[in-house]
Amino acid sequence: MMASNTEIQIKENGVLDDTSLDVAAAESFLQKSMAIILEDAVKKAVDVRQKVCEWRSPEELKDLLDLELREDGESETRILQRCRDAIRYSVKTTHPHFFNQLYAGLEPYSMAASFITEALKPSVYTYEVSPVFTLMEDAVLRKIIQVLGWEEGDGIFNAGGSMSNMYAMNLARYRCFPEIKEHGNSAAPRLVVFTSQECHYSISKAAALMGIGTKNVIVVPADKRGKMIPSALEEQIKSAKNEGAVPFMVNATAGTTVLGAFDPIDEIADICEKYKLWLHVDACWGGAVILSNKHKHLMKGIQRVNSVAWNPHKMLMACLQCSAFLVRDKTRLLQHCHSARASYLFQQDKFYDLSYDTGDKSVQCSRKPDAFKFWLMWKALGTRELEHRVDRALVMARYLAEQMKKREGFKLVMEPEFANVCFWYIPPSLRDLPDCPEFWKKLHNVAPLIKERMMKKGSMMVGYQPHGGRANFFRMVVISPQVSKQDMDFVLDEIHSLGMDL
Amino acid sequence: MMASNTEIQIKENGVLDDTSLDVAAAESFLQKSMAIILEDAVKKAVDVRQKVCEWRSPEELKDLLDLELREDGESETRILQRCRDAIRYSVKTTHPHFFNQLYAGLEPYSMAASFITEALKPSVYTYEVSPVFTLMEDAVLRKIIQVLGWEEGDGIFNAGGSMSNMYAMNLARYRCFPEIKEHGNSAAPRLVVFTSQECHYSISKAAALMGIGTKNVIVVPADKRGKMIPSALEEQIKSAKNEGAVPFMVNATAGTTVLGAFDPIDEIADICEKYKLWLHVDACWGGAVILSNKHKHLMKGIQRVNSVAWNPHKMLMACLQCSAFLVRDKTRLLQHCHSARASYLFQQDKFYDLSYDTGDKSVQCSRKPDAFKFWLMWKALGTRELEHRVDRALVMARYLAEQMKKREGFKLVMEPEFANVCFWYIPPSLRDLPDCPEFWKKLHNVAPLIKERMMKKGSMMVGYQPHGGRANFFRMVVISPQVSKQDMDFVLDEIHSLGMDL
Repeated sequence: MMASNTEIQIKENGVLDDTSLDVAAAESFLQKSMAIILEDAVKKAVDVRQKVCEWRSPEELKDLLDLELREDGESETRILQRCRDAIRYSVKTTHPHFFNQLYAGLEPYSMAASFITEALKPSVYTYEVSPVFTLMEDAVLRKIIQVLGWEEGDGIFNAGGSMSNMYAMNLARYRCFPEIKEHGNSAAPRLVVFTSQECHYSISKAAALMGIGTKNVIVVPADKRGKMIPSALEEQIKSAKNEGAVPFMVNATAGTTVLGAFDPIDEIADICEKYKLWLHVDACWGGAVILSNKHKHLMKGIQRVNSVAWNPHKMLMACLQCSAFLVRDKTRLLQHCHSARASYLFQQDKFYDLSYDTGDKSVQCSRKPDAFKFWLMWKALGTRELEHRVDRALVMARYLAEQMKKREGFKLVMEPEFANVCFWYIPPSLRDLPDCPEFWKKLHNVAPLIKERMMKKGSMMVGYQPHGGRANFFRMVVISPQVSKQDMDFVLDEIHSLGMDL
Repeated sequence: MMASNTEIQIKENGVLDDTSLDVAAAESFLQKSMAIILEDAVKKAVDVRQKVCEWRSPEELKDLLDLELREDGESETRILQRCRDAIRYSVKTTHPHFFNQLYAGLEPYSMAASFITEALKPSVYTYEVSPVFTLMEDAVLRKIIQVLGWEEGDGIFNAGGSMSNMYAMNLARYRCFPEIKEHGNSAAPRLVVFTSQECHYSISKAAALMGIGTKNVIVVPADKRGKMIPSALEEQIKSAKNEGAVPFMVNATAGTTVLGAFDPIDEIADICEKYKLWLHVDACWGGAVILSNKHKHLMKGIQRVNSVAWNPHKMLMACLQCSAFLVRDKTRLLQHCHSARASYLFQQDKFYDLSYDTGDKSVQCSRKPDAFKFWLMWKALGTRELEHRVDRALVMARYLAEQMKKREGFKLVMEPEFANVCFWYIPPSLRDLPDCPEFWKKLHNVAPLIKERMMKKGSMMVGYQPHGGRANFFRMVVISPQVSKQDMDFVLDEIHSLGMDL
C-alpha cells in the first residue's frame, strides 16, 4: 500500500539515514561506564573499609534514584551518574562482610566470563549462534559427570537451582508416565514425591507449577541435625501406596539451606531402588563437597542417584547464575522429555552435526551461557584450588564455631557439620534468665533488631531466620577466600556491639 | 570432634591464613580482561568490516579451545588468551550483519547495566539484598502497565519469554482452579488451552511441563498472513466443551516468530469474554509496537487482556535476557499463585515494608535484575527514541521488501506487515522452471546451502526455516539502528553472490 505512494516512501526511508547509532559514542560511553564499574562496583565494593550497604528506606531511595521513565532521554553525564548511584545504593555482595546468602565474594575469572557474555549477547540453543559456549557447556557437564563418578550422563545449565529441581521432577514423571507429556496429569493417577522437611522451597513450587500439587509433596521427618530419616521415608512411601497414590520421586538434599544438613544418600538410594523411585539430589548448596577428598563422604552414594542439581555460583563463587542440572542417563531422556522440535530454530537440514544443537533439552528458548563462567574459573584455578576452597570454607566454619564457644553470649544451635554455622546471640540482659518460653520469646526478637542495626550501619550482612520451633537465629556461611579469621573476629565483636544493650 | 584435638585444629586453621584472595591481582586481571572485551567483543564485534563469525566445525573448535579441565590452574596470560579465543570464535550478535535471531545489535546503555549487575552479583528476591533493582523493576513494570493502557497490574521479569508464557498459563489455571496448586491436575477435569498454529513453541512446552499436556493445546488455524482466525477459535472452544474438556485460556500472539503476524486481539477478547477464558498475549517479539503511535493498532484490544509477555531484549535491544511478564490484576494473583512463603528468606519480622520483597511472586529463587537493563536504556533514550526504533525497524522492513521487488531472483513470501521480511532467493538455474513440485523441492535446498556458505565465509547470518507446506525461506529482521540501507543492499548482493551458481 505504502509502496505505491512514492512520496511517503521517500519520506519514510529518510528515517533510515538519520538514526544510525553513533558507534564511536557508544564505545566511548562503554569505556567510561567500565571505568566506573571497575572503581565503584569492583574495587570499592570489595574493600573491607567500605560499607556493605548504604541503607535507604524504599521511600528515600525512590527519591534519590528518580525512577520515572520519560519522553526524552538524558545526557551521557547524567546516565553515568545514574550508574554510580545504582552501584552506590546497591548491596555489595562481593564485600568480605556480606554473609547474607549462600553466595558471596569476588571471583575475578568468572566475572570476566560474565562480562564477555554480556558483551557478546549469545543465546545457547544452536551451535551456529553459540559454538564456543555450546562446547564449553558440554565440557563442564562432562567433567562434573566424571567427578560424580557416573559412567554416563547428560545435563544442562539452568536459570537457577529451582529450575534444576523442576527439571528433575519432570524427568522423573516422564520416566514413569511418558504419556503425561501429551495428555497431562488429569489422565494419570495421583503422583506423590517425597522430600525432607528441611528441603528447599523450590520442590514445593515445582509441584505446584507442574500440576502435581503441593499436598502431594510428602514431607519426611528429619533428625535433629536436619537429615532425612530413611526409615521414616520408607514408612511414608508405604502409607502413600496404601492410600492409592503413586510415588515416583524422592528428593534428597545435600546441604540444606538453613542447617547445611546432608541427607544420607546411600540409605535413601537403597529405598529408591527397592520401590523403583527416581532419586534426585538437590545439591545446589552442598554439591561442591564432591570436589573435596576430605568431605565428599557427605555425598556418599551419589554415584547411584538419577539426577543432581548443583549451583557452582554458591560455594565455588561462580558469578550468578551458574546452576548445573545433571541426569544419569544415556537414553536422551532430557531431550525426549522437553523437546518441541521447533522447525524454525532446530532445522534438520543444517550442514553440521545437529547433536550440537542442545536447545531443545531446555524448557527455555533463549538461554544464557552460564557454563562459561564456571569453565573459565576452573581453567584458571584448577580442580585443586576448587577443592581447597571447599576445605577452607569448612575449616572456617569450625573456626567460627570454636570462637563462639570461647565467647560469652554466643550459643551454637548445633555443631556445624558443613559450612553453615547457626547461632544465637544472647544479650547480657537475657543471660541470667532460665531456659523457659519467656527466654526464647525474648531471644526471638534479638536477631531482627541486630539485623536492622547492622543494615543501617552498613557494617555487615548476616542472615537470620526462625526454624521449626526454634527462635530466630543467625546463619553464618563463609564462602570467599577474601574472608580472613580477623573478619570472623570482627563479625562476633560487631554482633555483640550491636546487640549488647538489647 | 576435631575441636578436641588441638594439634589438628591449629594445622587446619593455618588454611585460613594462606589462601586469602589477592584482591589487587584480581582487580588487575579484571582491568586487563575488560580492555580485551572492549576491544574485541565490543569494538571489533560491531565493525562491519570484520566477520560476523569465524566458523569452525565442532571438532576443529574443540581442538582450538583445549576444553579439558585439569588439576592445576593456569597463568593470567594464558587465561587472558582464553578470553580472546572465546570472543574470537563466538558469533558476533552485535555485528550489523547478524540477522539470525529476533535480537541483534549493540545497545550501550543496556550493556553497561548488564556489566554493573555482573559486578554486583545481586539476586532480586528481597529488598534488603536488592534495594535498587527491586525499585527499578517496579518502576519499569508500572511504566509498561501504563503504556498498555491498564488501570492496574502486577508483573515480574523472567528468564526469557518461554517462562513468561508459562507464568500466564499457571495464573490462568490458578484463577479457574486454585485447588490445583495444592492437589494437582489429577483431581481436575481435562483442561485445554487454545493458540494459533503460528504460536511460539513455548506454549506447548509449558503445557507439557505443567501437567496439562501438549494434546490439550488446541491449535487454531491461522489465515494466510498467519493470524489466528477468531471464528475458528470459537468453533474449537465449542467443540472442546462438547467433548467434556474445560477451556481455561487462549494464547494470542503479537508478532509471530516466522511471519511476524499479529493475532486480532480485540476479536479474540470478545470470544474470551463470552466464554470467560483467560486471554494471554505472547508479545515477546511484537510488544514494542505499543510504544509506536503509528503501529500500536496492531495490538488493538491489549487493554482488555489478562496478561502479556514482552521481551525488550528483542526489538528494543536490551541485553539478553530482558523479559517482562505483566498481569492485569489487583488481587495479588501472582503472589498467591506462586508463593511458598519460605521463612528463612521472607522473614515476617523485618524492619521494612515487606511488600518490597517480591521474590515469592517467582518460581525461581535467585533471579537476575534484568529490569535494570531496560530502565537505564529507557532513561538514556527516552520513550521517543524507543518509539523511533520501532518505527525505523518497520520502515526498514518495507524498504527491504521494495528492494527485493526490484531485483531478479528474490521473491517475497508475503508483503511484510511488521518487521519480518520472509523471502526466497531463486538462483538463475531455477528461474525458468514452472511453478511445480519439482521447482519447490529444488528451491527447498537453496537456503540451507546459502546459509552454509555465508557461515563459512562469515559475511553475515540470516535465518531460514521451512514453514507449513512452504519450502525453506529466509527471514530477515532488522532491529538495530546501526544497520543502514547500504547494509540491506549488501545482504541482497551477498545472497545473490553466494547462491547464483546453485
